[in-house]
Amino acid sequence: MKKISVGILGATGMVGQQYVQLLANHPWFDVCFFASSELSAGKIYAEAVSGRWHMNMPIPERFLNLPVHRMDEIELAKRSCDFVFSAVSNDAAKIYEELYARNGIPVISNAAYHRRSADVPVLIPEVNPDHAQIIPIQQKNRNWERGFIVAKPNCSLQSYMIPLSPLHQQFKVKRLIITTLQAVSGAGYPGVSSLDIMDNVIPYIANEEEKSEQEPLKIWGHIQDNFISSTNNIAISAHCNRVPVLDGHLACISVQFEQKPDKEEILSIWKNFRGLPLPSAPDRPIIYREECNRPQPRQDRNAGNGMSVTIGRLRDCSIFDYRFVALSHNTIRGAAGGGILNAEFLMQQGYLEGIC
Amino acid sequence: MKKISVGILGATGMVGQQYVQLLANHPWFDVCFFASSELSAGKIYAEAVSGRWHMNMPIPERFLNLPVHRMDEIELAKRSCDFVFSAVSNDAAKIYEELYARNGIPVISNAAYHRRSADVPVLIPEVNPDHAQIIPIQQKNRNWERGFIVAKPNCSLQSYMIPLSPLHQQFKVKRLIITTLQAVSGAGYPGVSSLDIMDNVIPYIANEEEKSEQEPLKIWGHIQDNFISSTNNIAISAHCNRVPVLDGHLACISVQFEQKPDKEEILSIWKNFRGLPLPSAPDRPIIYREECNRPQPRQDRNAGNGMSVTIGRLRDCSIFDYRFVALSHNTIRGAAGGGILNAEFLMQQGYLEGIC
Amino acid sequence: MKKISVGILGATGMVGQQYVQLLANHPWFDVCFFASSELSAGKIYAEAVSGRWHMNMPIPERFLNLPVHRMDEIELAKRSCDFVFSAVSNDAAKIYEELYARNGIPVISNAAYHRRSADVPVLIPEVNPDHAQIIPIQQKNRNWERGFIVAKPNCSLQSYMIPLSPLHQQFKVKRLIITTLQAVSGAGYPGVSSLDIMDNVIPYIANEEEKSEQEPLKIWGHIQDNFISSTNNIAISAHCNRVPVLDGHLACISVQFEQKPDKEEILSIWKNFRGLPLPSAPDRPIIYREECNRPQPRQDRNAGNGMSVTIGRLRDCSIFDYRFVALSHNTIRGAAGGGILNAEFLMQQGYLEGIC
Amino acid sequence: MKKISVGILGATGMVGQQYVQLLANHPWFDVCFFASSELSAGKIYAEAVSGRWHMNMPIPERFLNLPVHRMDEIELAKRSCDFVFSAVSNDAAKIYEELYARNGIPVISNAAYHRRSADVPVLIPEVNPDHAQIIPIQQKNRNWERGFIVAKPNCSLQSYMIPLSPLHQQFKVKRLIITTLQAVSGAGYPGVSSLDIMDNVIPYIANEEEKSEQEPLKIWGHIQDNFISSTNNIAISAHCNRVPVLDGHLACISVQFEQKPDKEEILSIWKNFRGLPLPSAPDRPIIYREECNRPQPRQDRNAGNGMSVTIGRLRDCSIFDYRFVALSHNTIRGAAGGGILNAEFLMQQGYLEGIC
Repeated sequence: MKKISVGILGATGMVGQQYVQLLANHPWFDVCFFASSELSAGKIYAEAVSGRWHMNMPIPERFLNLPVHRMDEIELAKRSCDFVFSAVSNDAAKIYEELYARNGIPVISNAAYHRRSADVPVLIPEVNPDHAQIIPIQQKNRNWERGFIVAKPNCSLQSYMIPLSPLHQQFKVKRLIITTLQAVSGAGYPGVSSLDIMDNVIPYIANEEEKSEQEPLKIWGHIQDNFISSTNNIAISAHCNRVPVLDGHLACISVQFEQKPDKEEILSIWKNFRGLPLPSAPDRPIIYREECNRPQPRQDRNAGNGMSVTIGRLRDCSIFDYRFVALSHNTIRGAAGGGILNAEFLMQQGYLEGIC
Repeated sequence: MKKISVGILGATGMVGQQYVQLLANHPWFDVCFFASSELSAGKIYAEAVSGRWHMNMPIPERFLNLPVHRMDEIELAKRSCDFVFSAVSNDAAKIYEELYARNGIPVISNAAYHRRSADVPVLIPEVNPDHAQIIPIQQKNRNWERGFIVAKPNCSLQSYMIPLSPLHQQFKVKRLIITTLQAVSGAGYPGVSSLDIMDNVIPYIANEEEKSEQEPLKIWGHIQDNFISSTNNIAISAHCNRVPVLDGHLACISVQFEQKPDKEEILSIWKNFRGLPLPSAPDRPIIYREECNRPQPRQDRNAGNGMSVTIGRLRDCSIFDYRFVALSHNTIRGAAGGGILNAEFLMQQGYLEGIC
Repeated sequence: MKKISVGILGATGMVGQQYVQLLANHPWFDVCFFASSELSAGKIYAEAVSGRWHMNMPIPERFLNLPVHRMDEIELAKRSCDFVFSAVSNDAAKIYEELYARNGIPVISNAAYHRRSADVPVLIPEVNPDHAQIIPIQQKNRNWERGFIVAKPNCSLQSYMIPLSPLHQQFKVKRLIITTLQAVSGAGYPGVSSLDIMDNVIPYIANEEEKSEQEPLKIWGHIQDNFISSTNNIAISAHCNRVPVLDGHLACISVQFEQKPDKEEILSIWKNFRGLPLPSAPDRPIIYREECNRPQPRQDRNAGNGMSVTIGRLRDCSIFDYRFVALSHNTIRGAAGGGILNAEFLMQQGYLEGIC
Repeated sequence: MKKISVGILGATGMVGQQYVQLLANHPWFDVCFFASSELSAGKIYAEAVSGRWHMNMPIPERFLNLPVHRMDEIELAKRSCDFVFSAVSNDAAKIYEELYARNGIPVISNAAYHRRSADVPVLIPEVNPDHAQIIPIQQKNRNWERGFIVAKPNCSLQSYMIPLSPLHQQFKVKRLIITTLQAVSGAGYPGVSSLDIMDNVIPYIANEEEKSEQEPLKIWGHIQDNFISSTNNIAISAHCNRVPVLDGHLACISVQFEQKPDKEEILSIWKNFRGLPLPSAPDRPIIYREECNRPQPRQDRNAGNGMSVTIGRLRDCSIFDYRFVALSHNTIRGAAGGGILNAEFLMQQGYLEGIC
């Protein structure tokens, strides 16, 4: 199989670097275009990330000398890549994601900006694969021929959306109170100062509670009249905290369903949940640990190469129906890994096919 | 005023050391009796804690040569002290707290063992001072003449019981979902291994969720028919986590009242709440911070010399009425400081008077 | 005694905040002038440090509304303050410290810029008090009437200069190999990213080894021909590391003397070393701990209100004469506290007298 | 090739678990015998390590039900295994290592006990492979037929012995002053309490400085008159510190040679140093990083699957010849990985051959 050519917008930032590392040996995708802000543009990649490469593997050899382009070199992008991953800031996403899509280049985005656009899907392939069907509608709405924008959700909610979704299908989630304990890597680099987080907790992350409460409603919503309509029978309340952990967002979840399932039904659904046949998809997207003190960020974040969600401590709740703890790797499943899985799924479904 | 003589049971452990440090210059209490397990008994204090003194001040000079006695040297205890602070393990509490009380020595306890005894008050002087009235009943129930046992609650719940109680008086708490982020010092010494907690969270603390859910019901209960009857119209659900923080338990709270108060009413009650006129009582037991990212353990744990609770982020909840964040110093307000405040309060109320 | 009026240059940065906190209740000095970079100038202090106040006490009430001026408002500074503490960056020190001194305002500086100026003393009052005598020479060299500049040394070297100096007087230090383990607060705020230092050590701090090797030679030097001449018979080699510690720089020291003293002589010198009769001077600038595992940053950094150096583990060395471990609080003794002590000393010596 | 059968003494401790993890898929060795202290003996492995399995991979499936035997079940050991890895405490090593060797079972040991026995080699295959020749002499000395004991050095010194040894061969190391910054995993489990090490450094590790100073002299020594004679022209002085890092011991080294090499010679020797053709040997045992701030524990400990030493910052020294920084993974190269490499080397050299 011939690999298809991809670009990375924001290739020099933390999420961009994660893309570079995860795509170094991808079986389907071949990175051949880097774009970044003015500061890095014009340099080769090795130079552009010199002194701020934060991955645990060295920069893949063949990317060392790849040039970093300006974000607006759209003609070159059109000639170079079949689609792009966008790992840019919200401000840049606002300007450039539509530019690329309008020019016929599909954008698989990590940015929050378009998650609120009603014809842009917020996609987790194991959860709402049918939302991909908004793509031709989006193209029609916007008069775009081949380009489109697909977003992935915020990193904080992956840990509970994946285990809750198969339960939601059968028993309908009604109320959800969540407290997250989020890792410092979620804030990018340099991100959280050591003076703020060592021997400390920060009980606030800007805009994180809003995203954690609103994005699930869209993900569990349905395509209706050319748009994705958020579900409106679910109430979610989130507390988001930053803790001194490098990677891995943990969530404590209290959930009430329309119909209360048995504990055994839940465990059985989780244990039987299987992954998609895609290169980055974990065989078991949901791993339930029986130990009383799991999941733990350092022990469980790398399960399924960072793409599985680990859960534990399912127990009764005296107020809602059940309580449990969930963990997801915020920079893999919650960022670049999630974006790559989206691209793989869209490719398999034929949405990226016409381009290659 | 002549100081009254006090003993410390379990004087060589972490909580015992905290008592030693906090009582070094107490205006009312004079420590003159130390008891501990077999391992330390027979040594002088300096020797007994050698290599395991964990306080940030040196051992107070005048305690260096004080002998450490066996727990069962009850005749000596009777001659030496007017009452004792108990900082022993649950197993030792089971054996020795009744022994001391039966022998006429009041016990101000930190142990969990007697918190469930229906005629033992679980006391926070700012919250349920009327529960002290169970003392003569307890003495009658148990046929004790001068001795009695008073417990203080678990460290995890001080942060929310103090701010919720004045609201509960007016608006009646109905439902409470709490997630705690607790410091490692709560597990004593050596307690939590660095290998378990660095770059990690442990989403489980043995028996902590049960205590966090049950003790508030007793604290908000009433004396009835010779016992303290727990309130039964309140449902509490707790998630307890250990985080890499040295001191300070933080809690994320979602609360529903029987009658929903205005946000301004809550803030006004908190801002007007004043402390008791006791040596260890903070002038402001509740400190509300306006900043969006407070309270934080390292910044706020020492407020009011570790005896104030700091709260912040009061905001609406889409499911219950309100959400907020609360923080309390677990080894001061939540342990030895809370015990000392109890003793001061009981002294002021005359319960320790007959003895001196 | 009437207090004398002082200003703080760079009042809104980390070191500036430390000055504000330490000077809140100073018996001699009354802060009445704040200057800062363009960003903060024009605001009141509370506003200027809003969201970035990093001290553990709240902003002292009476500073909340003090205006923050531009660094170049020199006429106002002349009318407002008898001398200034400078807590500015090296670049700003280059421009402004001479400006203030030229305009008759003595500058007690924390910046590195003038430490290399041969007529500027690098002062530790307990170590090289005689270097203050360069002040009239400096004024003559530079044709300044009342102003002058006095520097304090780099934070990394306080921990070993103070204990080594009384030994150096008698036995002459010849060779010194030092490895420092330095706290993150030494890098200012935001300073070291949590992603760089959690579960990690960074074995490099820019320019720190050079300063650690050169500044001691000047401190141990002598006034000669209108300049301070560095000593040239001592060789120093330093390794500087950043470790995940909030405050407190620790140093492992191997030292060789011209004449090897007895171990008992060293311990006796250290134990008999007494502080200066100044408000911020600790009674015991050198505290020797007998325990095998001290000093430790968290346990010992606050000794003497952060102004004492704690040392331990004096032992023979198979290569040089002796080895030991030393610790000093980098933001108190090593920064603002050291600057204040310098001002107190200069005041006592009459160098600031003519001004008041 | 038929695999040979190996046992693990102390299989349930931290180092034992590391052996279990690293040997799960070893091409030559097949683990088929576990022995441990009385506490674990009689259980199956899964049960014996339940609640205290500290590796980042799950227990390999096929070891779950392997029985754990008593250390003294020597007849069973003789029938089950060709040699054993010993990961026991010093006290147990004293008793059991000779028991096994006397009974014809070679012991590849991690314990310190026999490192001082003059006919037991302290082996690093890349450094002193010739010391294996003591094995037949040891057997003759002790009248053992097939069994023997081979030790590996202390974890603290791997980081500098590997890069220094090829330099020592040519230029003769003369003096060495070392400061180590060691990870908490070096103390085993539960090991270092979080209360002792968070936001702190402990400048002392029991016996570590002695080992760091003496073992290199034996490793650089020579077989002479039936014993290994330590070299006696080298002076080493070590400062050992515990820092809040999970894995990876870092060392700051100042070294003087008999003949001072050029910086380029050193770099060239390091860059050309190649590994042994053994399954666990890294291709490049020495990795020199050009960046000014490397090596770092979290970034570099896993180089070469935890078997490579990463070094950096080679620079002139004003007192000795050169300074540099070195890092080695203390639980892989410094413990189980080093033991496995020793076994592979001895197997390749024929010392384990006669047995299989």
